[in-house]
Parts: sequence; C-alpha cells; structure tokens
Amino acid sequence: MLVVMSSSATDSQVKRVKERIKELGFKAHDIPEQEPTAIGVTGNSKQEERVYLEGLPGVAQVIPISKPYKLASRDMHPHDSIVDVSGVKFGNGNAVIIAGPCAIESEEQTLRISNAVAERGAQMLRGGAFKPRTSPYAFQGLGEKGLEILAKVKTITDLPVVTEVVDPGTAKLAGDYVDMLQIGTRNMQNFTLLKEVGKVGKPVLLKRGMSATLDETLMSAEYLMSNGCHQVVICERGVRTFASHARNTLDVSIIPALKQVSHLPIIIDPSHSSGHRYSVIPHALAGIGAGADGLIIDVHDKPEEALCDGPQAILPDQFSELMCLVVGICNVMGKKIGNQKVLEDANQG
Amino acid sequence: MLVVMSSSATDSQVKRVKERIKELGFKAHDIPEQEPTAIGVTGNSKQEERVYLEGLPGVAQVIPISKPYKLASRDMHPHDSIVDVSGVKFGNGNAVIIAGPCAIESEEQTLRISNAVAERGAQMLRGGAFKPRTSPYAFQGLGEKGLEILAKVKTITDLPVVTEVVDPGTAKLAGDYVDMLQIGTRNMQNFTLLKEVGKVGKPVLLKRGMSATLDETLMSAEYLMSNGCHQVVICERGVRTFASHARNTLDVSIIPALKQVSHLPIIIDPSHSSGHRYSVIPHALAGIGAGADGLIIDVHDKPEEALCDGPQAILPDQFSELMCLVVGICNVMGKKIGNQKVLEDANQG
Amino acid sequence: MLVVMSSSATDSQVKRVKERIKELGFKAHDIPEQEPTAIGVTGNSKQEERVYLEGLPGVAQVIPISKPYKLASRDMHPHDSIVDVSGVKFGNGNAVIIAGPCAIESEEQTLRISNAVAERGAQMLRGGAFKPRTSPYAFQGLGEKGLEILAKVKTITDLPVVTEVVDPGTAKLAGDYVDMLQIGTRNMQNFTLLKEVGKVGKPVLLKRGMSATLDETLMSAEYLMSNGCHQVVICERGVRTFASHARNTLDVSIIPALKQVSHLPIIIDPSHSSGHRYSVIPHALAGIGAGADGLIIDVHDKPEEALCDGPQAILPDQFSELMCLVVGICNVMGKKIGNQKVLEDANQG
Amino acid sequence: MLVVMSSSATDSQVKRVKERIKELGFKAHDIPEQEPTAIGVTGNSKQEERVYLEGLPGVAQVIPISKPYKLASRDMHPHDSIVDVSGVKFGNGNAVIIAGPCAIESEEQTLRISNAVAERGAQMLRGGAFKPRTSPYAFQGLGEKGLEILAKVKTITDLPVVTEVVDPGTAKLAGDYVDMLQIGTRNMQNFTLLKEVGKVGKPVLLKRGMSATLDETLMSAEYLMSNGCHQVVICERGVRTFASHARNTLDVSIIPALKQVSHLPIIIDPSHSSGHRYSVIPHALAGIGAGADGLIIDVHDKPEEALCDGPQAILPDQFSELMCLVVGICNVMGKKIGNQKVLEDANQG
Repeated sequence: MLVVMSSSATDSQVKRVKERIKELGFKAHDIPEQEPTAIGVTGNSKQEERVYLEGLPGVAQVIPISKPYKLASRDMHPHDSIVDVSGVKFGNGNAVIIAGPCAIESEEQTLRISNAVAERGAQMLRGGAFKPRTSPYAFQGLGEKGLEILAKVKTITDLPVVTEVVDPGTAKLAGDYVDMLQIGTRNMQNFTLLKEVGKVGKPVLLKRGMSATLDETLMSAEYLMSNGCHQVVICERGVRTFASHARNTLDVSIIPALKQVSHLPIIIDPSHSSGHRYSVIPHALAGIGAGADGLIIDVHDKPEEALCDGPQAILPDQFSELMCLVVGICNVMGKKIGNQKVLEDANQG
Repeated sequence: MLVVMSSSATDSQVKRVKERIKELGFKAHDIPEQEPTAIGVTGNSKQEERVYLEGLPGVAQVIPISKPYKLASRDMHPHDSIVDVSGVKFGNGNAVIIAGPCAIESEEQTLRISNAVAERGAQMLRGGAFKPRTSPYAFQGLGEKGLEILAKVKTITDLPVVTEVVDPGTAKLAGDYVDMLQIGTRNMQNFTLLKEVGKVGKPVLLKRGMSATLDETLMSAEYLMSNGCHQVVICERGVRTFASHARNTLDVSIIPALKQVSHLPIIIDPSHSSGHRYSVIPHALAGIGAGADGLIIDVHDKPEEALCDGPQAILPDQFSELMCLVVGICNVMGKKIGNQKVLEDANQG
Repeated sequence: MLVVMSSSATDSQVKRVKERIKELGFKAHDIPEQEPTAIGVTGNSKQEERVYLEGLPGVAQVIPISKPYKLASRDMHPHDSIVDVSGVKFGNGNAVIIAGPCAIESEEQTLRISNAVAERGAQMLRGGAFKPRTSPYAFQGLGEKGLEILAKVKTITDLPVVTEVVDPGTAKLAGDYVDMLQIGTRNMQNFTLLKEVGKVGKPVLLKRGMSATLDETLMSAEYLMSNGCHQVVICERGVRTFASHARNTLDVSIIPALKQVSHLPIIIDPSHSSGHRYSVIPHALAGIGAGADGLIIDVHDKPEEALCDGPQAILPDQFSELMCLVVGICNVMGKKIGNQKVLEDANQG
Repeated sequence: MLVVMSSSATDSQVKRVKERIKELGFKAHDIPEQEPTAIGVTGNSKQEERVYLEGLPGVAQVIPISKPYKLASRDMHPHDSIVDVSGVKFGNGNAVIIAGPCAIESEEQTLRISNAVAERGAQMLRGGAFKPRTSPYAFQGLGEKGLEILAKVKTITDLPVVTEVVDPGTAKLAGDYVDMLQIGTRNMQNFTLLKEVGKVGKPVLLKRGMSATLDETLMSAEYLMSNGCHQVVICERGVRTFASHARNTLDVSIIPALKQVSHLPIIIDPSHSSGHRYSVIPHALAGIGAGADGLIIDVHDKPEEALCDGPQAILPDQFSELMCLVVGICNVMGKKIGNQKVLEDANQG
C-alpha cells in the first residue's frame, strides 16, 4: 500500500501519518525524493482494508498494490485451472459449448431442444428452473418441477446440466439435481447466496455483474472459493454502458485481462450480450477470438413461443452454423471445442 | 407497443407480423403514411413482454409505449406518497435526515453516535448489523447481536431505526427489531430478497443498483409493492460510470425524472456517492437542491477506528454544519427537514 | 512514479527495470518489504510520460503519482482563482448567471431574450453564432452575422457576452466581437482549436467533454493556459452514462473534486444536462448546492419556434423562479450570485 | 415520429398537440386504442428535428422512427460498400491489415518498420505526423516533415498510407501526400474538420468517438459523405466505460449492429483498445470474429524508445503471429485478409 501526500502537506502531517501507520501495527517506509511525498506501508495485507489513512489531514491518495483476492489469483496457482463438470473440461485449451433453452418450459420442450443441441456437438445443457425477472409479473420459472425435468432429460441425452440458483434456501436442493450451479448477473454480489452455493460442493458458473470490475468479479469467485468451491468458471455476458445497439456491451477485453491475474477459466454468453438473434454468432466468435474457454448459448426451436428471452435464442440451424465456425476457429487457435465424438461422427457421416 | 419495420420489409413480412399479433390475442393497427412502416399493437399490456415480434423477418424495432410498473406509477397514484416510519414522514414537502454509523460495532459506539446525531436534529438512526462486503475477508457485521443493540439504543434515543437485510431468511427477524428495512445496492435485483422483505410489512428503503435504470429501480419497488409493502422510499447513492474522482457518480437527475413518473419519495446517500469525507456535504446539498426527500449519512466520531467505510464518515461537527445548511436551503425551497423540536430548542438555546 | 512488479517477476527482471530507469536519466528507489516488489522512480516529472516501463518483462503496473497538469493545479496557485469577464467575476464566493438563447436566430430575438434575462438578474448573455450540430442537415448558426448581432445587443443591454468557437480559423474573429469564448463539449480535446483560442487573449469557458475525466478536463485547460490564456472557467454539462432519464448525467461530484486539485472556477449547464424544461431548475439547484461558481442556462420566450434545443429552454417566468431560488440558496451558503444592482432594485420595487 | 402523451393528458392537450403538428406543416394521425394516447406524425423527415413537441403540456415522449442519416444508411445502398484505397479494398469479404508506428519519428524508423510489416503481409502503412496528445507538453508529431517521410517511404515499400489530420487548415495538404486521411477519436464530432476533410476527395478512416453512439458515428460519416467523400471506413477503437482492465472497452457489438443499418465497412484498432502489448492479439482476433473488415495496428521494433504509445505497440514477431492467426480465421469465415501475394510467396518459401 502506498500513501501519497498532497503537495501542500506539512511535515507534521507526514509525521502523523507515519505514527498512525505504526499504531495500526504496520510499517511506514519513506520513498526517497518522491514529489509529492509518498510513504510505503507494509505488514499484514489481509488487514489493509482497515487502514483508514485517507481521512488523515494532508493525505491525497491511498494506492493499494497487492490484490484483494488470494485463492482466485494466479499468484497462488500459476497454471491455468481445469474445471471438470462431470467429465466436461473447461480451461487450458479445452473450450466448452453449453446450449439450451433460456427457461425450462416443459419436459417435451427441454428434451426436444436438448437432443437438437446434443446432436450438433454441444457438451452441456443449460436451462433455467428459477428465473430472476425484472418484472414481478413475468414468468418466474417452473421451480423444483424444472429441476426434475432437467434431471430426467439428462438421463436421456447424457449432457451434464447447469442451472441458475436464486435463493440461498434452494442451493442444496438444486445441487442434488444438476452438475453445475449458476450465479446470475444480478446476484454476483449477493454474498449470502455466494456463501451457500459455495458450500454445496458442485462446480459453479459465476456470471459477471452488470457493472462489475475485474477485481469485484474475482472477489465474488473468492467468496465461492473460500467457502469450499474451487471449481469456478467465470462468465462474461455483456456489461452496461452508454451504448444501446446491443442488449449489453460484450466486454471481450476482460478475457486476456483475467487470464493475466487469475487461473480460472472464463466463458462468454453471446445470447445475453447481443439480445438479438442476428448478432449472436458475431458475439460468439468475438469471444472465442479473444480467448474464451467456451460459450453458453440460448437455443430454441420455437422462439416466438418461448416464455423467456425468445428474441435472443438462435434456431437449431443457426446453432449448426455456429458450431461449424467455432470448431474451425478453435482449430486455428490450437484449442479443442465441442463434443469430439459427435463432431467426428458427423464428419464421417 | 409499436412495431417498426425495416425499410426493406416486404408486404408479406408486414402481413405476417400482423397475423402474429392477432394469433397472440392482440390487435394490430396501421399507422398511416409512416416511413418506415409502423404498426400499433394494443391489448393486454401486462402480457406485452411475451409478444416476441423482434425476431420476425422484416422487423427493425419494437418500441414499448406503456410503462412496465403499475403500483409504483404516478398514473395509479397521482399525488406524492407520504411514507410514515414510526411517525417520521418522507415525501410531499417532508424531508428526513437519517444518520449514524455505517456498521454497528458495539452498544457503546452506537449509543454515543446516536446521541450525537439526535441532538443535532437527525430524525432517524442508521446502522448495519449485516454488512454486504466485497471481500469475504472483511468484517461482515455483528448479525443478530447488532439488531439487539439497535433496538436497545432506540429505547434510549427514541430515533426510529433503519437497517439493511441481506438474507431472505432473516428478513422477518430484522423486522421485529427495527422500524424500516433496507435493500442494499448490490441486492436491488435480488428478487428472492425483495419478495421476502416485501412480505414483512415494514417500510422499506430501496437503494438503487450500481447501474440500474429508472425503470429497473421502479420495477424493484414494484416487487416490494406487489408483495404487500406499499411504504417504499427509493435511495440514490451514486452509480457506476467512467468517472473515478468520486467513489460513485451521484446521479441527481434521477430525482426530478422519478418524480415525473412515480409517486414514491426518493432520498440521497451522499456518503456512498462521495466516498470521501471532504465531499459529503457538497453531495448532500446537491441532492437537496435537486429535490430529494431526505438524506442518509454516515456519521462516526472516531472514523479512523471504524470497522467499515471510515473514510466517508463525517464527524459530528461536520454533521452540525451540514444540518445548518440543509435546514436553510429547505427553508428557501419551502420544505421541512430535521427534527423540528430539536432544531427549535437549539435556536432558542 | 511507481513501478509495481508482478509476483512472479524474477530478480533479473527487477534489475533490468532499474537499469532501464537509469538509462532514461531517472533514479530508481527500492521500496522496502513491499509485496509485490515496487520501485519508485524520480527525476524530471515533465518527461515521465516517455518512460515506457509497462512493456518490460515482469512489470505489472506503472502508477503515476504526480499530476500531469501544472498551471491548472492548486499546487501552483493555492487560492481560488477569480476570473474576470468585463467586470463580471467567477470564483472565490462569486457565482455568475449566464443566460440567453441556445442559438442567435435574429437581432430582434436576441435583444428580446437578452432584455428578459437582464431584467431578472442575469450577469452575462449566452448565444451561439456557430452551432456544432450532430446532423449536417441541421441549422448550423448564423456565423459572423450572429457575432455582429451579439455585439450590437451588448451595446444595448450591457451584458458581457459568451459565444462558442468551432473553427481555429475564426477564433480571433470571434474574440473581436465578444467578451468570452466557449469551447464546446465535442471540441474539448480538439487541441488545434484549444491552442488557437488560447492565443486570442480572451477569457474562455471550457465545457467538459462527454466522457472526459477530471484529469483530461484539466489537461485541456492546461492547453489554453500554456498558450497564454489564464482566465479559464470550467463547465460541467452532464456526461454520458448508461442512464437515459435525462439528456446527460449531470456529474455534480466533479465540483468538489476539481476544487481539491485546481484553483479554477467551475460552473454548471443545467439545460444541456437535463434536456427537458421540467428538470432544468432541479439540475441548476443541484449544481449550486454542490458548490458551482455559476450557471449557464438556455432561456427562450418562444421555445417551440427555437431553431436549436427548444425543449430544454426555460421560459422567462421559470427563469424568474430559478433566480429567486438560487439567490436564496447562495445566501444560505455565503455566496453572491446574480446582478446585485438589478436584484436590489427588484427587492425595493 | 410518434408522440406519446402522458396518462393524465387532457383531451384539450391532445387537441393542441395535433394543431401544433399541423401548424408546422406535418400531418397528425390517431393511433387507435393505444394507452396512453399516441399520435403519429408524418411529413418531411428532414425537418423533423425542428418539431419541438416535447415541451407542449401533456406530452410524455417523442419517439423518432426514421433514422437521421441518409447517405450512410443501408436503405440508400442495400449492398455492402467496397472502399478502394489505391487498390486496397475494404468490405464485402475483403479485410485489410493496416500496420505501422503510432508516430512518424524519422525516415529511418518509418522505413524500417514499414518494411517489417510489408514483408509480413500488411496491406497498408499507418503513421502519425500530427499527434493529438492529451498533454500540451507531450510530443506533438513531426508535422509536414512527417508527411514527407510517409510519401517517401511509400515510394519504397509500395504500401498505401493513412495518416491523421487534426487541423482543418492542413487537410488538403495531407491529402497531397497520403492515400487515406484519418479522423481521430477526439475529433469525431469536430464538424469543421469533418467538412474540410470530406471536401479533399480522398478516402477517410473515421474513428468512433470515445463515447459515441452508433447513430452519432454514422452522422459523422454523413458529414463526410454530404461533403463529397463517399469512401468512408469506420474504425472501432474501444469506448469509455467503468472498466479499467484495458485502456478502452473494445465494443465488438457495434460491428454486426452497424452492418444491419449501414453499408460502410468497419475495422478495429486493437492497439488503442487494449493499451497493453500482451492483449493486442486477443482484441484483434475478437474484432475479426465479430466480422470486422480489417485491423489497424501499432507495430514498433523498439517500443521502449517510441515517442508515443510504446506500451501498446507489438513487435514484428508478434505481428507475424497475429498475421498467421487472422489469415487462418478469415479463411474459416470465408474472407480474404492480408497482402495475398506476399502471403503466398511466404507459404511457398
């Protein structure tokens, strides 16, 4: 931590800052010849947030140097983590396609779409049983009935399943039905939920908040990890900016930035970033180009009848086109993506 | 709802859109001579979100005309609501000062600060028992012990109390101890929590999310209201933008904009918007100038020792200065603010 | 300047960074016990931007400590500057009301509105002769004819005049007609224009760019000042964010933040921030509450016929109401605002 | 254009709005059964911006339906435009690599880097003679001397050249030396410059402003086009958001969105979006994946000595790696990129 004094700070103000640093159990270090005066602070970095020096007279700025996250940091784990979800691997050259409907509407609908994506090379199924909706009057999901459908469909199509949890009280229940739990964008800093989901023991897909910084995103991963869940995959799904030509602004720059500081895999949700069917494929390929470890995509075969987010769901034919392009691009980039067995069979067929 | 076709839309595409509107149980209306072609849609506005016309060929844009919130809308309640928290009134010319520590640290600390703000004219006490912290390693609050302290201090200083709830499971418990429940910024779209807090039956202070639009903020109020809580006060506490010269960007423009479309009172949190002691008063006066119905302010008498957000807590002396200025400005604006009895006694003393 | 190494940086990488610092003519200073390793850099701060250390292996971050602006900094000029525009003073307790039409449309219109604002206490007249318009098909202003009208109207109403310059080639010409030159939002980083306007020798009103940081805004002031113009007033007119309930997001937080680091006065443009007549007064009072040194306001007596920005122009009656409120609030805050002679005559009348 | 009345609007207010529409020479159309009341407005769409109905009593919102740009719109030109710069083609399946130093520092440096990028497959050379710098104390470019160097180097390496113009007064001069003129980010709404550059008659590379919307970007293209320049290429170089993990937030979503509404080609500047050497390639591939018609990249062989933006310049070796990846990805996507002759020779070599 570095304390920068204002240019007009007096010697006695500098002295008081140093005293305060010592009172708090830290060490103060002069930084020679710096203009304005700067003081290094060392000691227990876990406690640094408690060092309130900003309010002291003459202090212009307090600059943290060490990162607030530990378990999510590449310092603790220099190599890329591989997250294994019932045999499907994310990270370190393994990219994953998760596809399916936004919401579970019925067993028949879920099975139909699950088959459609499975036979085109998807490795995992997505589907919402509990839907966090902006409006209290909108469809809120089938609840536990939706979980039962997911579990049943899984026995048929054999795709591992990810579903969102919105209530700390149902985290454990959901964990009994599915392979991976999802924390949604609006709950990225719902710390009560993070703690409960972290304790379940299943891998977690953590969606970045609407305006979360990289550090905040990793701090939410840290909540999961410090509660026992080390199998965390981050998901970028677009952030909120002034731009309105897409539903959200897909921030591909977070992919290389996150990989600099963290060992966790990161995937892209091009459906929620684009918000419109016509631009899902360009968003998806942008994410893959930026180095994402996979995609999570809304697919629906009757999107005009979907109970949730129909306009952004792509059709099975578009999903085929997407698979063809991402497999080709990942090949150029030296990565594997998609269900290799299905794709090989298709090539030979 | 208005459907705008693209310039290159064919007649048969226009026809298909109209058919689809009818299939869904709505009516389609030609809008004459509009270039590009536009089609009005009428029917049950509650169901409009389900009308997925965006994906149909030739559709350029779907523009909603009616607002998604009902109970929070001024259409339903043309006059300003007055929210009454144990006798303290928000709205329609009544502005409220809520002050106190960010976190409850001990009974002694809470009582000391509560007395300090009460005797300077504050009308309500704030204090956090459950603290949502970005870091899992930071102080998370005293929990139920904190609620007990708040209840005890209230019997002494007689200030109604507001405290934040972070867990749907403790909403009812907190409601037994305090006069008003707070939904924090990071939980504004924690819909599970909104539903549970809405059912408790206590007035609610709803903080705007970090990047929530006006409509989204009112939709979260709608969650509370449709679950039985009609005593909702909105709180603007700064939003996230590119600017970094303050902790958050205080968006005063939401105050007149909200008052155009909603009857709910809105207050300002200048402590969280500024993030620095030196700028709390300017932020507070800006909010009052923009028409806020009150302020919620961090006050601490030993901010360097505070367990949470010390740098933004103002000292009791600064709180006196602030009170003096806001009372004068509200007077110019034809509003009442502060504990009138305390302020009158002070004037006569 | 501080160089923070990554945790995995090797000793030889640290050594290379220190060597490079010396090669560039600077000094490297160890900062003891810092984790990760940090190195202080001292020397000629004007040249610091040239020190490209970020690209060297093992460097995680380069943190500037000194500010890039010099002449605009409070370090160079500890007391608030007073900018004097033909006798009207901005800063250090003096607040100024600038009012008038968005665009000069005719001599008759300008004179009529100028009289209306003068007799209600405005101290300066605003009016655009050169209008920067988003659309090439929109009214672009009367050009030099507009400048002639402004000069003529000034001889009648005796209000000093400010007008925008958009072309480096006409900066000197405009300076011959008016008392203060304005740099518009879209030109805040039009450095060619800043240099030419800086050389004219008239006071300048510098509008903050749509997404300019505080530092960038002061760097643009620095362009004016280093070219000879020391009479600079900054203007906050709303920035671009995700929020759409106002034309722009008025960032009142820049007022106290700027006053911490700079001696320059800052005013508010509530017309361009609100964009709607109904919210101009709340935006104006928010700015005054936050400590602004004045306001620049669009006033029109026939706004439906205005050639530019009619919806945000307030009517003369609303301007009277605004004057009454700001005079009262400035009184509470210990400041003077408005033409004192006119206001006193009105009080006595 | 659509006028939406507020729910509380009276019949006489609706009547007044319709009268006003007719007074202005437009037609008013009832939209049946809409709640709240909505009125269609038709007539001369060029003049619509002058219809100030927002200020009339009872009006809640005015919604434009037609787009403000005409020449840049796909309505006017349904097929993708191909922009030809001295034989190098942008658009409709042709992607272009522009590479070179940020600033022209000397003939030797420019020639050296030009050769390095040419022999690796770049199709055009970039290099700044006039540098718009945030600080008045930073290197501002070699000026006309820089243009001379560019022209000379072109005779040797045979790459068409693009350079930035910052002053309306030197637009014509620059056009005499180079093949394509660039409008920089900070000047995207410098309308005086747009007009002058539009008149020169050379193709223009128009960089999107720091916080420009899609419509604003196309309106600036419209300034160029309505002044005679129809050879416009748009460039996305990152926008300003709350995120700080990259220099700017690369907004790949503008690529498919722009292609929906406009026929103009769009390229990506991954150097300015990333700001750091390590992330230039991921940004570049993201842009290509999203459908960009090319890249403009800072390349320097001695970046620590660069006079401008050294940390974001990639080395020649990295440029080779980038070329290899983009050629492969464009191949998968059915596009051509890079100097085909050079690439073929390299493959055979």
